[in-house]
Amino acid sequence: MAKLTIVAKTVAKTDSVESVKSEMLKLIAPTREEEGCIEYFLHQDNEDPTILIFYETWENYACFERHMSTQHFKNYVNTVGSMIKEKVVYKMTRVG
Amino acid sequence: MAKLTIVAKTVAKTDSVESVKSEMLKLIAPTREEEGCIEYFLHQDNEDPTILIFYETWENYACFERHMSTQHFKNYVNTVGSMIKEKVVYKMTRVG
Repeated sequence: MAKLTIVAKTVAKTDSVESVKSEMLKLIAPTREEEGCIEYFLHQDNEDPTILIFYETWENYACFERHMSTQHFKNYVNTVGSMIKEKVVYKMTRVG
Repeated sequence: MAKLTIVAKTVAKTDSVESVKSEMLKLIAPTREEEGCIEYFLHQDNEDPTILIFYETWENYACFERHMSTQHFKNYVNTVGSMIKEKVVYKMTRVG
C-alpha cells in the first residue's frame, strides 16, 4: 500500500508567529517517535514568516489518524487554536 | 548557509490533469541530475487529483534559480501554461 504524504500549511496570525512556531517545534520529537512516522519536517516561508508548512510521510493513513489522537497533538491543537488564521491539510501520494 | 526548500502547489484544469502530471513526471529525472538538487518529489492529492505538489530541497537559492533557467524547465512551463488553473511557490527554510 502507498505511503501517505501530508503537506499541512498553517498561516499564523501576525502577532502569534513565534508562539505557533514554538508549539509546532514541540510536536516534532514526540511525533517522530510514533509508529509509522517516516518523515516529519517543519518549514517557514522565507518571504512571509506567518506561513509554516509541515511535510510528513506516514507508513499509512491509520498511523496518521493515530497521530491526530495523541495527547501531544491534541495539546498543540488546543494551544494554537486562537493563534491561527488559516490551515489546509493536503493528504497526498508521492507519484514521482 | 541554510538549504532552500520549495513547496510548489499547482492546480491543473480538470480536463488537463493527466497531461500536466505527465509533463511534471518528465521533469524529475533531468532535475535530479542538476547540481545542488538534493530532493525533488512529486505528490498528487488523494481527494482532489487536480492538486499536485512538488517538494524540493536545494543546496541554495542559486541552484534553484539555475533550475528555472534550464531547457527542461522552460519546456515544461511552455507546455503546461494553458493547462494550469493556479500555481503558488513557497520558498522556505527547514526549521525543525
